[in-house]
Amino acid sequence: MPRTDPARLLSDLRHLRSIGAQGKGVVRPAFSAKDMEARRWLKARYEEAGLEAAIDGVGNVLGRSRQPGKALLIGSHSDTQPTGGWLDGALGVIYGLEVVRALAADKATRKLPVDTVSFQDEESRFVGCLGSRSLTGTLAPEVEQAAVDNAGVTLADALREAGLAEAPRARLAPGRYAGFVEAHIEQGPDLEHTGRRIGVVSSIVGLRSIRFVFRGQQNHAGTTMMARRRDASAALYELASRINLEFPKAAAERTVWTMGRLRVEPNATSIVPGYADLDLQFRDASDAPLDAFEKIVARLVAEMNARGGVVIEATPARAPIPPTRMDPGLQEHIARAAERHAPGKWQHMPSGAFHDAGFISASLPSAMLFIPSIGGISHDFAEDSRDDDIVLGCQVLADAAASILTSANSARTGA
Amino acid sequence: MPRTDPARLLSDLRHLRSIGAQGKGVVRPAFSAKDMEARRWLKARYEEAGLEAAIDGVGNVLGRSRQPGKALLIGSHSDTQPTGGWLDGALGVIYGLEVVRALAADKATRKLPVDTVSFQDEESRFVGCLGSRSLTGTLAPEVEQAAVDNAGVTLADALREAGLAEAPRARLAPGRYAGFVEAHIEQGPDLEHTGRRIGVVSSIVGLRSIRFVFRGQQNHAGTTMMARRRDASAALYELASRINLEFPKAAAERTVWTMGRLRVEPNATSIVPGYADLDLQFRDASDAPLDAFEKIVARLVAEMNARGGVVIEATPARAPIPPTRMDPGLQEHIARAAERHAPGKWQHMPSGAFHDAGFISASLPSAMLFIPSIGGISHDFAEDSRDDDIVLGCQVLADAAASILTSANSARTGA
Repeated sequence: MPRTDPARLLSDLRHLRSIGAQGKGVVRPAFSAKDMEARRWLKARYEEAGLEAAIDGVGNVLGRSRQPGKALLIGSHSDTQPTGGWLDGALGVIYGLEVVRALAADKATRKLPVDTVSFQDEESRFVGCLGSRSLTGTLAPEVEQAAVDNAGVTLADALREAGLAEAPRARLAPGRYAGFVEAHIEQGPDLEHTGRRIGVVSSIVGLRSIRFVFRGQQNHAGTTMMARRRDASAALYELASRINLEFPKAAAERTVWTMGRLRVEPNATSIVPGYADLDLQFRDASDAPLDAFEKIVARLVAEMNARGGVVIEATPARAPIPPTRMDPGLQEHIARAAERHAPGKWQHMPSGAFHDAGFISASLPSAMLFIPSIGGISHDFAEDSRDDDIVLGCQVLADAAASILTSANSARTGA
Repeated sequence: MPRTDPARLLSDLRHLRSIGAQGKGVVRPAFSAKDMEARRWLKARYEEAGLEAAIDGVGNVLGRSRQPGKALLIGSHSDTQPTGGWLDGALGVIYGLEVVRALAADKATRKLPVDTVSFQDEESRFVGCLGSRSLTGTLAPEVEQAAVDNAGVTLADALREAGLAEAPRARLAPGRYAGFVEAHIEQGPDLEHTGRRIGVVSSIVGLRSIRFVFRGQQNHAGTTMMARRRDASAALYELASRINLEFPKAAAERTVWTMGRLRVEPNATSIVPGYADLDLQFRDASDAPLDAFEKIVARLVAEMNARGGVVIEATPARAPIPPTRMDPGLQEHIARAAERHAPGKWQHMPSGAFHDAGFISASLPSAMLFIPSIGGISHDFAEDSRDDDIVLGCQVLADAAASILTSANSARTGA
């Protein structure tokens, strides 16, 4: 069995943290100078580990094994949130590098081909999961052309400035791979609360969202009697409150819903608002509760519209993301490795956050491995995990990789 | 009985409208060049009507009768909202001028002293009811010093630019007056809906407001399970919705309440909000429903805080305005005049909006007369009233003024 090197692993993770470090956090948004510096450093590390490495035309760093046979792709992303933590993405990238080195150092596994990747712009400076979309051929040209960051910079300008405008774009060759595994911090508190150290991701939850628009009549808050009002804000409060009362009846154990963005106009204390809008987002690992929520919403909106006061429109706020099942075979390899190194201290769990594995799973059998986040904190300078959890996760991944590749290549040979 | 001159009245109203006219509306905010032009025109008109006129140090235009005896003060304000209507304020100002002329033209009333006023900045460019506050000595120096408009201009600079910095500020001499009457458009739809043409204002409603602050925990909207959330927006929706369910049980016939201003942070679709705030404003002509509302709010907040999730604080958002009863004797004079000219077509009613009469009533017996607003529309370019209602209102006011002054001065002589 391969042995990962904890000191080497932590040292590389900390070196990556140093590129763009701010206090305990990291500021390394996609295509920034620090992001490109980190990608060039990664490419060099991939080469030192014996891989053929390149940065492709959207900024993905790809490391290709020179070994023949079915390969396993391992990685995540090295770009960060505008004020990000040090492990979100970085953990899975450095795990890939360390697994390559650990397998290469062991006689039994040194011929097993592991490719590595650090995807670009998972964190949505321009297009969320830009790199995995590009690699799987699902980045629509019109999406790319319209991509602008919050400061008004276009993706085309960012690519030019990063020196990537002429670089070829890599495409995934599905025939090459047994699958893809992405390791990641949990970004939630569940492993910490259950006292478990490894999460084997069963699915990436689906996400739907609805934008409500409330059209009423703007009026003077002193002279307009209650019976004559068509108050857009009152309709918003009622609908949101009824959703929060009705959804628990149709929710599964881990269904979540959020109404965290709204607008009321003119948003003045002494004016009855004539307009409001509100976003509702809901997520689950299966479609059933999401379907049930849509029915509840349709019923509530119809009931309220039947009164003839404020007119409510409900439309999808974005393209829905369907729930994505992780590959059961790959999950089984990870679960067995987890049970070996942390007996009874691992669990299957869905991922409430979206990841590059969600896009890759359309082309390759894919799986994810989580380690605990301290306090469940993520997307924050305070994001952190315990060193022993970081070390454990990488060893589990290395074992699982060896097992996946041994199985894939012996099966093939045996066929 | 005095006879008002409909043609002269409408002509002066339309002339005032022409100063700052934009389409059907008027843009004449306090201290603007157009506002000062209108005030100089008014001063000249007051003088033509035989009054001693002056513009005081805050911009109030005051016309003083040369007749001896107890005087009646009549007026309103000639400043407008940033995009205002042509009658809000202007109606009551021109009524004062026309009443002076009508009384002076009639042998029976020509010795009755009527003073006129156009208050400054009723519409809150700097300080709401600046002119009536100054006249009654209730403009606190710290309020005046802190006064800045939305563009960052200080009141001191506006006074200087308007040429008023050195002008003396007038103070009300309560001993001079039998009372104050302010005529105004209703700014609501009630007179139109009941088919009545004159409103005799019984009181200016009291106003209280509460600012709620909701402190929760900001979290990832995908990875934070519902049971662990402390969602500031969900608490806001619940409290607002329960207020809208509970208040009708404690409301009087004309109690109103509004929650038209709120803030949610960070106000993003995929983030559970950790902070929110919300303003609740409620108005009634008597304290009882307002007291009951405060009790309901305290109970709901205590109930929700007892759950130990989001922490809700409720504090007064501004100094409360107590309900102000209009003087019953003055109301009676106006009611009798209304019944004479519009038999069965008038009513007592509270004013849901605040007016200068609210400040003056602390120093003088005060009353208000309303005429209908077409469609209840106000604070809008579309604000309008029918010519025959405008004419009727002024005649009612002239009769009432003659009656008030005859009574006040004969009583005095008789004492």
